[in-house]
Amino acid sequence: MRLAFFGDIVGKTGRRAVEDHLPDLRERLALDFVVINAENAAAGFGITERICNQLFDLGADVITLGNHAWDQREALSYIEREPRLLRPANYPVGSTPGAGANLYDLPDGRRILVINAMGNLFMETLDDPFAAVERELAAAPMGVVADAVLLDFHGEATSEKMAMGVFCDGRASLVVGTHTHVPTSDTRILPGGTAYQTDAGMCGDYDSVIGMDKEEPLRRFTTRMRSGRFEPATGEATLCGVFVETDDATGLAVRCEPVRIGGQLSKYIPD
Amino acid sequence: MRLAFFGDIVGKTGRRAVEDHLPDLRERLALDFVVINAENAAAGFGITERICNQLFDLGADVITLGNHAWDQREALSYIEREPRLLRPANYPVGSTPGAGANLYDLPDGRRILVINAMGNLFMETLDDPFAAVERELAAAPMGVVADAVLLDFHGEATSEKMAMGVFCDGRASLVVGTHTHVPTSDTRILPGGTAYQTDAGMCGDYDSVIGMDKEEPLRRFTTRMRSGRFEPATGEATLCGVFVETDDATGLAVRCEPVRIGGQLSKYIPD
Amino acid sequence: MRLAFFGDIVGKTGRRAVEDHLPDLRERLALDFVVINAENAAAGFGITERICNQLFDLGADVITLGNHAWDQREALSYIEREPRLLRPANYPVGSTPGAGANLYDLPDGRRILVINAMGNLFMETLDDPFAAVERELAAAPMGVVADAVLLDFHGEATSEKMAMGVFCDGRASLVVGTHTHVPTSDTRILPGGTAYQTDAGMCGDYDSVIGMDKEEPLRRFTTRMRSGRFEPATGEATLCGVFVETDDATGLAVRCEPVRIGGQLSKYIPD
Amino acid sequence: MRLAFFGDIVGKTGRRAVEDHLPDLRERLALDFVVINAENAAAGFGITERICNQLFDLGADVITLGNHAWDQREALSYIEREPRLLRPANYPVGSTPGAGANLYDLPDGRRILVINAMGNLFMETLDDPFAAVERELAAAPMGVVADAVLLDFHGEATSEKMAMGVFCDGRASLVVGTHTHVPTSDTRILPGGTAYQTDAGMCGDYDSVIGMDKEEPLRRFTTRMRSGRFEPATGEATLCGVFVETDDATGLAVRCEPVRIGGQLSKYIPD
Ligand SMILES: [Fe+2]
Ligand SMILES: [Fe+2]
Ligand SMILES: [Fe+2]
Ligand SMILES: [Fe+2]
Ligand SMILES: [Fe+2]
Ligand SMILES: [Fe+2]
Ligand SMILES: [Fe+2]
Ligand SMILES: [Fe+2]
Repeated sequence: MRLAFFGDIVGKTGRRAVEDHLPDLRERLALDFVVINAENAAAGFGITERICNQLFDLGADVITLGNHAWDQREALSYIEREPRLLRPANYPVGSTPGAGANLYDLPDGRRILVINAMGNLFMETLDDPFAAVERELAAAPMGVVADAVLLDFHGEATSEKMAMGVFCDGRASLVVGTHTHVPTSDTRILPGGTAYQTDAGMCGDYDSVIGMDKEEPLRRFTTRMRSGRFEPATGEATLCGVFVETDDATGLAVRCEPVRIGGQLSKYIPD
Repeated sequence: MRLAFFGDIVGKTGRRAVEDHLPDLRERLALDFVVINAENAAAGFGITERICNQLFDLGADVITLGNHAWDQREALSYIEREPRLLRPANYPVGSTPGAGANLYDLPDGRRILVINAMGNLFMETLDDPFAAVERELAAAPMGVVADAVLLDFHGEATSEKMAMGVFCDGRASLVVGTHTHVPTSDTRILPGGTAYQTDAGMCGDYDSVIGMDKEEPLRRFTTRMRSGRFEPATGEATLCGVFVETDDATGLAVRCEPVRIGGQLSKYIPD
Repeated sequence: MRLAFFGDIVGKTGRRAVEDHLPDLRERLALDFVVINAENAAAGFGITERICNQLFDLGADVITLGNHAWDQREALSYIEREPRLLRPANYPVGSTPGAGANLYDLPDGRRILVINAMGNLFMETLDDPFAAVERELAAAPMGVVADAVLLDFHGEATSEKMAMGVFCDGRASLVVGTHTHVPTSDTRILPGGTAYQTDAGMCGDYDSVIGMDKEEPLRRFTTRMRSGRFEPATGEATLCGVFVETDDATGLAVRCEPVRIGGQLSKYIPD
Repeated sequence: MRLAFFGDIVGKTGRRAVEDHLPDLRERLALDFVVINAENAAAGFGITERICNQLFDLGADVITLGNHAWDQREALSYIEREPRLLRPANYPVGSTPGAGANLYDLPDGRRILVINAMGNLFMETLDDPFAAVERELAAAPMGVVADAVLLDFHGEATSEKMAMGVFCDGRASLVVGTHTHVPTSDTRILPGGTAYQTDAGMCGDYDSVIGMDKEEPLRRFTTRMRSGRFEPATGEATLCGVFVETDDATGLAVRCEPVRIGGQLSKYIPD
């Protein structure tokens, strides 16, 4: 299976990057399935039905979220109607709308399990992400029920993310981090066959502070006071993500490369 | 000036990577000056005089530190005798041994200001890093006193690190992050001319959890209990860093590329 | 039922305060059941079998723990053999030795459920404490299975502790906090009948920094460096806790008062 | 000098408690000077000129703040005109409006130094509070320039607050904590003569979660989602504070007792 994952869409410029590059890329890389984290798609904060539909139209098969999942309150009801939208699986069971994982059918009958989970280190804590991921992996084991497994692990600490990679190694096709809004260059296949990258990076304008216009964040760091709101930067975004090719017999990765197109960062498109 | 910076050396395998690749690289890239963060060089925790001397012999001109600066207590007195060893500049003034910045003379008379500072977000807090960096930049302004300025900003949060890049843009040759032990692929020159990479990555074994043998970190994440000590992983390390070429007239960067050699990560050596 | 709870025993001086005052107090207040948090009893860090036995001999019926539960590694096996020793109930199910709650029989046949749980705010996170407490309350409902219910909620943030009081109100006899090592004066019976005090305070020497000799903590705060180990202060300790009288028909509190005897704090003994 | 300090005023009910009890208390305790922390006076968030004037009219001589200092943006300009309003002294020097300490003249010519500072543990960090307090104490030493010194140390961690008490012992009349919104019962005079209480508690409705209506905080803790805004609880508030009597020759405390009047908590008024 040929998969691509793209990190946190930040604002209009991030959506524009998807519009400008995804349709092409989907064809060029012969992608079977595309997952996008869009927790910051709505002006930096959360997601709306309109934006999800735009992203689905542009070639996203599944959309994942993170700590900004509920910034737009309509997401609370919309997610109940839209199985292609996932929120972290380690939100409390019972009280949280939507799902944290789902098994999706490809047109050709193959099936992919997509999981979204959130780290606990240096973040508002949810339930144990390792237990939640274990539960989801067990519900649709790769090579038995799922032909491929993709985990978007939304977290701050590199230690927790690398530990999650190790935890899933051999049981998932791809473990990729989100949330820091900076792509890492540690793209590789772990010893057990799981592709891994600590962070996918954002689809946003890197001439910024994690996607936001530079003025206000800098003022907060230097004065310790809030002077205004965070607004997404508006320069050209870089589409940032990961491309993975799996072995359909096992679900394990046979190839994993980064994707970076447009904007401030150095260009990288897998051949 | 042709500069290279390498991220946190983790344990013996990290030192070995420096030994295996730095002498060659120094020649190949015609490096004028090399700075290495070595806060984890001594079995993962701190630094010793013996290790510093080994690194100086291998081609390091200056060594920087971070939150692990004092893990080996001999560093407290050693740093008073060794001007080529820096600890974060935002430790309290008056009570902290050593210096957080120094101006170094190259054999040809050019001078480089090296600053080490530590972030406050998600870390044990020191004094304001922005104020400390401002103070050091003002003491030896680039283009006036210093021919180049290199800042190792040791921090966890990408937001604080990108803000520091913005803060120094036009006033430093290179702002590079350390501490997360994962290299980022956002290497670039900011609009004002300062080269920037959010994290240099570690010089350590990436088949690990941030350089440590996988077992114990994984057990702590899944059981929430400590079962043993953290030990550096012992597989082949990847030498990770950044190469920068500056314009001697201004100190600004004209070229910036990542460096990754050996071990688990994809190889990248500037031409 | 007449209950007393005492907060974190810190070191030898804390154990001495129990020795000096608990036998007397047990008689004077005609106590039916005594619970003591002893996470810092072993030289400030953890608990041992020998110390538990000493505390049981002095009149403790049950001992609770917190984030320092496993500082002494013998506790990991000892807790498996000793049902009167509890660790926080929100440690991961399956991998953690010992229990987080138990139902205890009084000589006269009445039964008390004792729960230990740990907060997640500003602490190393465990599983959701609210879900864990809900599960334990449901397993032995007050007025149905248990004649009284006592919860030691070990946490940092007053907001999380007050919320836990509200959460249990009407379903427990006493919700009392530990961990901050400072007694609060908000002792009261909540609207639903549950006695509540945000923190019981420590049984330790208050001429200190939370029970530890003042020098090292002060040095760390002012220099941001570690110069030595934390050692318990050795002056006379104050026995700090809460006394509660319940209605055996409902388990709800009819009376709740603080207890403070000896050392630096103002004395308070219920009539 | 006869001083009283009252903790964080929370909303209208907190202001009402001041109105109902302060005028009486001022006379009954023959108070020379009254300081009130009012960071939550404006519907739970920040302060306004109108509310400050109300509190001054009711008998407050000085008003202190904390992490909510700037929630109402008018405070940024108002504080420049009102020397009786203080914000934490460890905000960055240069960029922050207002002052963190001031020397005030009593009608009889005696002078009191009031300092406001904020802790760094478990809070958004400011500059080092110990260095800031040192600077302010040195500017108007007790017994030399100031006849009394009062420090409101706004912080979360009991360790940092007790360390600040130790740090100032013998150099201040009173070190009292705020921010946790729960009064502690460790009121005492430290060995060097400084009166100390870890937290004054809030002037707010204790049938709440730290002064806020219970529903929303409880929902956030159990569901990990925001469902609405925090609103101050509206039941009768408890006026919470500390009374101190000093020796005018030295500034040191000769007597220190808590104050609790009205609402849910047990009543305590010094004789
Ligand atoms: Fe996020
Ligand atoms: Fe994000
Ligand atoms: Fe490091
Ligand atoms: Fe570090
Ligand atoms: Fe404790
Ligand atoms: Fe504790
Ligand atoms: Fe506060
Ligand atoms: Fe407050």
